Amino acid sequence: MSMTNIQLTSTISEDNKLTLALQDIDMPQPADDEVVVRLEAAPLNPSDLGVLFNAADMANATQSGTPESPVITADVPAQFMPSLEKRVGKAVAVGNEGAGTVVAAGSSPEAQALMGKMVAVIGGGTYRQFISAKAQSCLVLKEGTTAKEGASSFVNPLTALAMVETMRAEGHKAIIHAAAASNLGQMLNRICIADGIDLINIVRKPEQEKLLRDMGAKYVVNSSSESFLTDLTDAITETGATIAFDPIGGGQLSSDILNCMEAAAAKEMEEHTIYGSDTFKQVYIYGALNRGPITINRNFGFAWGINGFLLFNILGKLGTETVAAMRERIANEITTTFASHYTHEVSLSEMLQLDSIAAYAKLATGEKYLVRPQA
Amino acid sequence: MSMTNIQLTSTISEDNKLTLALQDIDMPQPADDEVVVRLEAAPLNPSDLGVLFNAADMANATQSGTPESPVITADVPAQFMPSLEKRVGKAVAVGNEGAGTVVAAGSSPEAQALMGKMVAVIGGGTYRQFISAKAQSCLVLKEGTTAKEGASSFVNPLTALAMVETMRAEGHKAIIHAAAASNLGQMLNRICIADGIDLINIVRKPEQEKLLRDMGAKYVVNSSSESFLTDLTDAITETGATIAFDPIGGGQLSSDILNCMEAAAAKEMEEHTIYGSDTFKQVYIYGALNRGPITINRNFGFAWGINGFLLFNILGKLGTETVAAMRERIANEITTTFASHYTHEVSLSEMLQLDSIAAYAKLATGEKYLVRPQA
Repeated sequence: MSMTNIQLTSTISEDNKLTLALQDIDMPQPADDEVVVRLEAAPLNPSDLGVLFNAADMANATQSGTPESPVITADVPAQFMPSLEKRVGKAVAVGNEGAGTVVAAGSSPEAQALMGKMVAVIGGGTYRQFISAKAQSCLVLKEGTTAKEGASSFVNPLTALAMVETMRAEGHKAIIHAAAASNLGQMLNRICIADGIDLINIVRKPEQEKLLRDMGAKYVVNSSSESFLTDLTDAITETGATIAFDPIGGGQLSSDILNCMEAAAAKEMEEHTIYGSDTFKQVYIYGALNRGPITINRNFGFAWGINGFLLFNILGKLGTETVAAMRERIANEITTTFASHYTHEVSLSEMLQLDSIAAYAKLATGEKYLVRPQA
Repeated sequence: MSMTNIQLTSTISEDNKLTLALQDIDMPQPADDEVVVRLEAAPLNPSDLGVLFNAADMANATQSGTPESPVITADVPAQFMPSLEKRVGKAVAVGNEGAGTVVAAGSSPEAQALMGKMVAVIGGGTYRQFISAKAQSCLVLKEGTTAKEGASSFVNPLTALAMVETMRAEGHKAIIHAAAASNLGQMLNRICIADGIDLINIVRKPEQEKLLRDMGAKYVVNSSSESFLTDLTDAITETGATIAFDPIGGGQLSSDILNCMEAAAAKEMEEHTIYGSDTFKQVYIYGALNRGPITINRNFGFAWGINGFLLFNILGKLGTETVAAMRERIANEITTTFASHYTHEVSLSEMLQLDSIAAYAKLATGEKYLVRPQA
């Protein structure tokens, strides 16, 4: 077992500078109920970029350091500094999830049972080489699963399953998903097909339409099309979808969705009322791909909600039993239903190159980066 | 008992015209469990204007008919007609509530018991002279209460009480109210003082600040002030308010409120996170005083909700027992906690004068119209 351990950190200093660097850290010593995982693969999710760059102006970032240990520096615009007070001066570890082999274990039977196993972990900064984790929190992957296959076992799979469980818990019967060609969107599409749930996929490009249709999606609407609002209303009328999940936020897509839901509901109403339909319409915003203002053109009555949707809060609501069932399904179907596709792989030092940053910061749908901490 | 009965109706025709007129209708005959109420006073609430004018261009309305029975005509812009399909050709009765004397009753003991009593009624178009109502749904006012005092016994009092009950049911501990100098706002202020609940009143004018402070309000912030956001954040920090009610909608007040709630919550956080605080922040939009777009500048994390708030839906959620207790409190406190103030009185025919319409359509805070169907 190698005696070096390296982690990627993001630090904001008092003088408005963001610094990204690789840090030598101690090898973790497992407590009784813990294991040490040699991380071999970790995905770059949009939320990781938030931790990595925060509000810094990455377009004007500079690179220094050495080729093996580059350092990236960028300015944080002054207006954001007051809200970052609690972060200033702290080297924040980045990376929300990953997978690798258990190389050390504490004395408890649960920890010992994991020795040599391929597991997925969540939290703690997975853009590092070795991490300790509670044995209980590790997701044990099936024999033969690779670290790459298991790297995205939590954020996207749990989010997609949480959407379906939220739909059920809140009494809706079909789902609308925006930016639906993403890895997460493809998972949701596979879950909905398997579970017999109608899913309306909103995409922006013809090739994304084709991708989802080739994967068996029945309802795909293109928000760039002139007939978008009519197409969406028709799909809602057919499916009865009254809950939507949107990772974009900024702009007026949430508003369009609610107005189309209302237009579909109005067709069923016997009388006109100024209060709109009593069909409850819900949009959950689960990301911030567009950080601009959300514009709501309200022609959808009073029975509606727009809410933030954050995985960790939702899991708390759904309860332990539901979450345990989700984890089991993910472990069993990680190479099928929950398969992720990566278009690029980068080492920790490659993550800190200006040209890689320019590429992965785009968050282009259809592109997905895998970090290889051992490379 | 007079044998004529007149009601005000609003009709939209296929050729995009809105017509407001007075109609002679039959005197109602009470069923066994019904009473007939001689309506003597009915308020003009914002929601009534929605039914009355709908989407018509009232600025260019014209008046015809006779002085006793005027007729108002206005154009409905073509783009609104598709959504009004179910309303076209129907003479819609207007007026959501009112009060008057029971002048006839069905054979049931409950109905007979109301003969001669002053009662408040809800629904059915109260801009008319005589209306039938289920005995059970009438709110019996205390001996000596006038029709004017009882006219607004439902919409504003129940809405204000529903706000407080919603706060309790959803686990919040203090309330923010926008457009707080309204009749409803004054009621809410009195309820919160009586019940020991911290209320942050948002107003737009210094005289409204004074009005509420003179009524004992502790927290009043002026949204026209340069220090508005700081003032609001400070008041939230002091009270812990995490639920707000806003009758305006359009513009960015809801967004400002959520951002101030988050700023207050962030002060208590030990660590910075890109997901924001886990303090759940809720804004309910219960009106549309500004029909323009709602603009949300999202710097408040993921633990938030913005929802429509419609009295009838909320009462359903709160349940029969809570609503019965609300009704009893309203009847007991209609001249104190739930007192309304009217600045103008109009007869049914005066409602259909261009100059009155221009005045009452403004929905100015501090001005309130009372309709006198018998005048």
